[in-house]
Amino acid sequence: MYLCKKNKMEKKASESLVVMTELVLPNDTNTFGNLMGGRLMYWMDIAAALAAMKHCGAPVVTASVDNISFENPIRLGNVVHIEAHLTRSFNSSMEVHLKVWGEDAIQQYRYKSNEAYYTFVALDPNGKPRTVNKLIPETEEEKKLFEGALRRRQLRLILGGKMKPEDAAELKALFIKD
Amino acid sequence: MYLCKKNKMEKKASESLVVMTELVLPNDTNTFGNLMGGRLMYWMDIAAALAAMKHCGAPVVTASVDNISFENPIRLGNVVHIEAHLTRSFNSSMEVHLKVWGEDAIQQYRYKSNEAYYTFVALDPNGKPRTVNKLIPETEEEKKLFEGALRRRQLRLILGGKMKPEDAAELKALFIKD
Amino acid sequence: MYLCKKNKMEKKASESLVVMTELVLPNDTNTFGNLMGGRLMYWMDIAAALAAMKHCGAPVVTASVDNISFENPIRLGNVVHIEAHLTRSFNSSMEVHLKVWGEDAIQQYRYKSNEAYYTFVALDPNGKPRTVNKLIPETEEEKKLFEGALRRRQLRLILGGKMKPEDAAELKALFIKD
Amino acid sequence: MYLCKKNKMEKKASESLVVMTELVLPNDTNTFGNLMGGRLMYWMDIAAALAAMKHCGAPVVTASVDNISFENPIRLGNVVHIEAHLTRSFNSSMEVHLKVWGEDAIQQYRYKSNEAYYTFVALDPNGKPRTVNKLIPETEEEKKLFEGALRRRQLRLILGGKMKPEDAAELKALFIKD
Amino acid sequence: MYLCKKNKMEKKASESLVVMTELVLPNDTNTFGNLMGGRLMYWMDIAAALAAMKHCGAPVVTASVDNISFENPIRLGNVVHIEAHLTRSFNSSMEVHLKVWGEDAIQQYRYKSNEAYYTFVALDPNGKPRTVNKLIPETEEEKKLFEGALRRRQLRLILGGKMKPEDAAELKALFIKD
Amino acid sequence: MYLCKKNKMEKKASESLVVMTELVLPNDTNTFGNLMGGRLMYWMDIAAALAAMKHCGAPVVTASVDNISFENPIRLGNVVHIEAHLTRSFNSSMEVHLKVWGEDAIQQYRYKSNEAYYTFVALDPNGKPRTVNKLIPETEEEKKLFEGALRRRQLRLILGGKMKPEDAAELKALFIKD
Repeated sequence: MYLCKKNKMEKKASESLVVMTELVLPNDTNTFGNLMGGRLMYWMDIAAALAAMKHCGAPVVTASVDNISFENPIRLGNVVHIEAHLTRSFNSSMEVHLKVWGEDAIQQYRYKSNEAYYTFVALDPNGKPRTVNKLIPETEEEKKLFEGALRRRQLRLILGGKMKPEDAAELKALFIKD
Repeated sequence: MYLCKKNKMEKKASESLVVMTELVLPNDTNTFGNLMGGRLMYWMDIAAALAAMKHCGAPVVTASVDNISFENPIRLGNVVHIEAHLTRSFNSSMEVHLKVWGEDAIQQYRYKSNEAYYTFVALDPNGKPRTVNKLIPETEEEKKLFEGALRRRQLRLILGGKMKPEDAAELKALFIKD
Repeated sequence: MYLCKKNKMEKKASESLVVMTELVLPNDTNTFGNLMGGRLMYWMDIAAALAAMKHCGAPVVTASVDNISFENPIRLGNVVHIEAHLTRSFNSSMEVHLKVWGEDAIQQYRYKSNEAYYTFVALDPNGKPRTVNKLIPETEEEKKLFEGALRRRQLRLILGGKMKPEDAAELKALFIKD
Repeated sequence: MYLCKKNKMEKKASESLVVMTELVLPNDTNTFGNLMGGRLMYWMDIAAALAAMKHCGAPVVTASVDNISFENPIRLGNVVHIEAHLTRSFNSSMEVHLKVWGEDAIQQYRYKSNEAYYTFVALDPNGKPRTVNKLIPETEEEKKLFEGALRRRQLRLILGGKMKPEDAAELKALFIKD
Repeated sequence: MYLCKKNKMEKKASESLVVMTELVLPNDTNTFGNLMGGRLMYWMDIAAALAAMKHCGAPVVTASVDNISFENPIRLGNVVHIEAHLTRSFNSSMEVHLKVWGEDAIQQYRYKSNEAYYTFVALDPNGKPRTVNKLIPETEEEKKLFEGALRRRQLRLILGGKMKPEDAAELKALFIKD
Repeated sequence: MYLCKKNKMEKKASESLVVMTELVLPNDTNTFGNLMGGRLMYWMDIAAALAAMKHCGAPVVTASVDNISFENPIRLGNVVHIEAHLTRSFNSSMEVHLKVWGEDAIQQYRYKSNEAYYTFVALDPNGKPRTVNKLIPETEEEKKLFEGALRRRQLRLILGGKMKPEDAAELKALFIKD
């Protein structure tokens, strides 16, 4: 029934692309008429989960969300564009990169809102983690995201208390000489 | 403040493209666990309105929806893909074509659900209809949709009681010899 | 368990009447403070489905929606009145007619918004189409709707690509001499 | 702008009738698959407010809700029928009586769920209470509800700490000899 | 599997405390920008149900709601605070007392909105009523609420037509000499 | 109109405490019947924003969210408990710490779900950042959170590209000898 067997297959990064478009309605906004951060994170979670499911062909659960910084508020009546695709898969987990823009269709301009990394774990029918397809990055940007995924993973493990800072070789290098 | 002035400008059909992705949640389904038709028409209305706004740079209201036929049900937990773009603009109204697919991310297949035409009217700040940009079709499919728009418009006017069947030249031809 | 057996029974058009009343809340409106067309089609779908279920005593799915023209916008805070009842049943499908009014309770006036035809198919417990009760029209209006149902059905089949225009006798007549 | 002036006008009880129909969706239910009491009270509040607005032609706010007893649970996928109409108007407040039924469209039976009394106050544009039209009961049931309204009002005032039990003549009679 | 057996156990009133905080969003408000009574009763129902479940460790259904009087409106953008705890348990039913405040975080003041009593019945896995733990009131306020529960229960039974006024000893006393 | 003036006042960490309780309903869950991560982040955003508003008495917007790791899934029908309070205020920004538990009221046990840090910026009536009250930590835990806030802020600035790793003294120490 499932497509990815024990001997992992390979899939391209671009195959996991998910494009989501939402309209900011009154109930999505705070008293300033701006999209609430929590509502945006909700949409991003769904877009990212769909990208992960496209890659592995199995149900997934959100394992973690990396630091998100909200740059420009998105206004009531504006449009939210979310693009999500996989950057790298590990044994049973997958990192998804998201970019978010706001768009004012009346004024006809588009502005960057934020970007983020969400991590998902694929589950088998018993709810246990299962191996996932390997990811093949193709473009320059995909390769850069693929390489950075290791460093971000170390940071996640340290922040989650599952790795000691001194064991994070890639990350440590950043603080010594970068 | 508005981009489209009295002397109408031209915009390509492809510039109005809107891609929307939604996940079917429990509250969107009927007792068979299938996406309710009304919920789908709600999402289609928003996607189509955004396409129309991208074309004309003004607020729009739904004027009419053409006959929609629901072919394949979309299941709970499946993904809904909606693609909308303008086919033709008239004086102050715009016809949007929508295609809808369902996708089962676990089984990794995608299926056609339905397609439809929504028509919108652009409004000025006083809520009165205003002229919109001309549409330039480029690909073969865009040109075909552009030409068919006239016939569909006649059908709409007849069904809305605003045109007599015998005055609908393009449509009449269909019933005589096509 | 089900009321309508293979030998079809008869039910009156008036027995399927469903009256629905909704209040337009902020999240139902566009930037002009008017009810979005998609939200209205969602409510109409539920009202029509309930009318169809009352007639056949079985679960139903939306098969198609005929051309809908939105005449008067319904304002935020106004009331939406929907009346739905069956016009005719075919083998396993049923056509429902809907009329929609807006009402401004403060100004105490009621205005026509639009009307539409939704078609539903009754399903057996395995999700397959099943025969439904015959419909008996009684009033003049019910009889007129009953007769028109055949012509609308031909139009639906043509628009859905399931009938050739020249085979639609009732419809063809409209374009030749009506 | 408002219809009811200082010299109060009269309106019939039947003119305020509101009929509401809702479908019980998954998010409306508890873990037993039954409609949550709170969701039902939400719909009843809207139906009752609309009935009050139809009577007085002014915005209204919920002032109080009388004791509600939930008799029969309404199942997921069943239909909720709510009928609301005014029983009596006081100076600026109006009592609305509601009856609620569930309906299983598949099994084709309808069952009483509960009934209730909601009280509303009409507001002028400054948000202050304003006088409302007088209510004329016509049928036997309307007259009975009209008369009982006085007794229920005393109970409300006592329970709200605004009247002493010994001053509630109508209510007191109930406990002495009824 | 269930904690409360036939031989009922005892639990303190304070163990059932539930604190709920909600933000009033646009869709929760009427045309005056105030929280709708029905939305508040919906939140209160959930808070009260959770308090009852904490006491009995079993699913519960809303049996009745006592007279609720809405004193101060809660504004859009304000915060709703709900505190719910058990006052007394009977055989299979539990009375929950709720207090509701609004809070304007900008102006930094908090105001009483209303209070209410909801009654729940605990169900066994077959949906039949089951016995629940005894409640032990400790503070002065808890003891007062515990004692008043008997009188409120008589009123509920009378209003629900299940007890004659003259049999309600505690309540009768109120009208004779209190 | 606003409480916090240019000369900043002091407020205790405990004064900003917000306790939120939510019930997991069907539409909040994924196909495994577990609360979706995005829905939880939405509730956390509101709870944290309310804590920040209590501290500064001004509207706030979400500036960033730190790495969140989801440990234990929360089941459909379970209860979500969120506790949020300020850890430290900077010039115009405030860091809020959140702890989340799930609770199975039937099985009567409570489990840790996750914890997180959200950062908010206070705005003046023109939407510009404004100074906020100082925070006074009192308990041991509050003091620890207060001190850690500086290190987390450096990490946020580095991850947001607004500080170079070698300038983050507190953070650097972690990677060299901690």
